[in-house]
Amino acid sequence: MALAYDGAIQRLIDAFSALPGIGPKGAQRIAFHMLSASDEEASQLVDAITEVKAKVRFCDVCGNVCESSPCPICADPRRDRSVICVVEEAKDVMSVERTREYRGLYHVLGGAINPMANVGPADLNIPKLLDRLKSAEVQEVILALDPNIEGEATTTYMSRLLGPLGIRVTRLASGLPVGSDLEYADEITLGRALAGRRDA
Amino acid sequence: MALAYDGAIQRLIDAFSALPGIGPKGAQRIAFHMLSASDEEASQLVDAITEVKAKVRFCDVCGNVCESSPCPICADPRRDRSVICVVEEAKDVMSVERTREYRGLYHVLGGAINPMANVGPADLNIPKLLDRLKSAEVQEVILALDPNIEGEATTTYMSRLLGPLGIRVTRLASGLPVGSDLEYADEITLGRALAGRRDA
Ligand SMILES: [Zn+2]
Ligand SMILES: [Zn+2]
Repeated sequence: MALAYDGAIQRLIDAFSALPGIGPKGAQRIAFHMLSASDEEASQLVDAITEVKAKVRFCDVCGNVCESSPCPICADPRRDRSVICVVEEAKDVMSVERTREYRGLYHVLGGAINPMANVGPADLNIPKLLDRLKSAEVQEVILALDPNIEGEATTTYMSRLLGPLGIRVTRLASGLPVGSDLEYADEITLGRALAGRRDA
Repeated sequence: MALAYDGAIQRLIDAFSALPGIGPKGAQRIAFHMLSASDEEASQLVDAITEVKAKVRFCDVCGNVCESSPCPICADPRRDRSVICVVEEAKDVMSVERTREYRGLYHVLGGAINPMANVGPADLNIPKLLDRLKSAEVQEVILALDPNIEGEATTTYMSRLLGPLGIRVTRLASGLPVGSDLEYADEITLGRALAGRRDA
């Protein structure tokens, strides 16, 4: 009996299954949706993937994703250059932007310290942050890392590293549910945590 | 403040959001996964979509999806040609195959009768089924439609339509949870429902 689909359909199901958050049943559902979708809808997805892989890069200054470096935030003369908000991932930049509570700059570490996954400080985008802190402009670094074990470890590490530099180092106020992802915090909770930040 | 992503990233998030079962947060997560994925992984997904749209078609006999018509099941000389299992969607064929309880042929209706969505018998792949039933080979039609309102309405309609033809018409045994999708039934439940099928 045929227990797998014909080659092309199975390959599409497998490709969607490989994406985060999509299980085998969901991948099958999406694959059949693509089958019956218009050629236009299919090309839209194909073109969007191709375009992102061709155009999107990381900002040489802050590590955020962008189509031109420096990114629009680093290049914006209206942003407050005295504060740098340090986040784990590029998508966390958007989470903080959505609070409309913050007008400073960002720095994307590209992860958090996680000994179980063999991620140490040397794997993070820290040297470029230290370079940026050499500028006399920066007066505060906000550590806005995920409120989980890895984020806490990274906050502690960064706080000890930056402490001797004579720059104010703060962290997000508690108020974020522990064990969660910053990415999934609602705007109000994250906005309050940002407003109530304290020295790290 | 930048509250949407740079063009290409936002277009990719939008394209993934348009797929069934993927919300805005999930689409963002997948888009960032694609960003950091290898070019090889990205091409695998792009190629799989392109290949499916180019190669996959519907079997002229049974309406199942396939890369060549007739499909491998219709073309398989070892299948029992005296039974046709009628399902709503091509993905239901795979669900029945997985039970390993069935050795006959299939017919895909392409949906179910749903007056609320303006889907009537004329919108379904019924004429080709009637053509197939002209062959003296077919002795039984199993109506394996979803155990919900639309599936029940379609079962009743098909049962009345096929009754006068002198062919045995059966339906899946109850045992499937009512209100659910056949697609999500586990193999054992669906296998038992198939084994215990009764006259419609
Ligand atoms: Zn930047
Ligand atoms: Zn077929």
